[in-house]
Amino acid sequence: MSEGVFEEFDPVPDADAGVSVGPDYFIEKDGERYAGGHLLVDFWGASNLTDPEAIVNALKAAATAANATILHSYMHQFGEGGGVSGVVVLAESHISIHTWPERDFAAIDVFMCGKCNPHQSLPILMETFQPQTVDLSEQRRGRVK
Amino acid sequence: MSEGVFEEFDPVPDADAGVSVGPDYFIEKDGERYAGGHLLVDFWGASNLTDPEAIVNALKAAATAANATILHSYMHQFGEGGGVSGVVVLAESHISIHTWPERDFAAIDVFMCGKCNPHQSLPILMETFQPQTVDLSEQRRGRVK
Repeated sequence: MSEGVFEEFDPVPDADAGVSVGPDYFIEKDGERYAGGHLLVDFWGASNLTDPEAIVNALKAAATAANATILHSYMHQFGEGGGVSGVVVLAESHISIHTWPERDFAAIDVFMCGKCNPHQSLPILMETFQPQTVDLSEQRRGRVK
Repeated sequence: MSEGVFEEFDPVPDADAGVSVGPDYFIEKDGERYAGGHLLVDFWGASNLTDPEAIVNALKAAATAANATILHSYMHQFGEGGGVSGVVVLAESHISIHTWPERDFAAIDVFMCGKCNPHQSLPILMETFQPQTVDLSEQRRGRVK
């Protein structure tokens, strides 16, 4: 990924500004109460999509960067040199990845509850997979209405 | 969940109508090419949120209902009687769940690629967790632009 894209794309838009966390780990932010932020991250023009050990290590590092607690990890590879499917399960939810090396594409999701900010996982994921373009969306899960 | 809610909520809106799948397992539907459908499912007023074995079995049954292939499963419980966090990793992507029994809330996501339709997992999840209300959103992952 070019540095230009890094400059345009701010993976940690507001860090922990204005966030408070209740005893049930639900978040209070911007006048809304919800369980956590769920990022759906599509990486195109991505690299390093076929090494299951490197990928699981990247997901663990991405979790740790957001101060999440890792409970379990698993990574499956679809034949030598093929794509992978896997997950890191966290005390605060999960990070998953599915890669299509034949399309230079990876579909990642980062769901984190409580005081963890899933945006803080993105720099390590971007550094690892070097995407040329990123489609990112965020949903607040468990919004109390 | 009441039968009334079941009647209002159609978990399998269009099944496999108009879907074709390429050799890279990307889907062609409605003139769009994409990797798969990713459902974010919030269950409120839900039951049966604390038995890890029953929950992992429900997730496996939900995967099988969509003709997905299970690669791996994992379920962690946060203390006896507490919530769970876990995942079933599929050849076609994954189903994850995180439960907050103290709020009668479960956050589930169902991501399935290729010919599997994630909506076909929903009836079993709804039957298992009996939600009073459902917040459902779907994103098409890996949309080719």
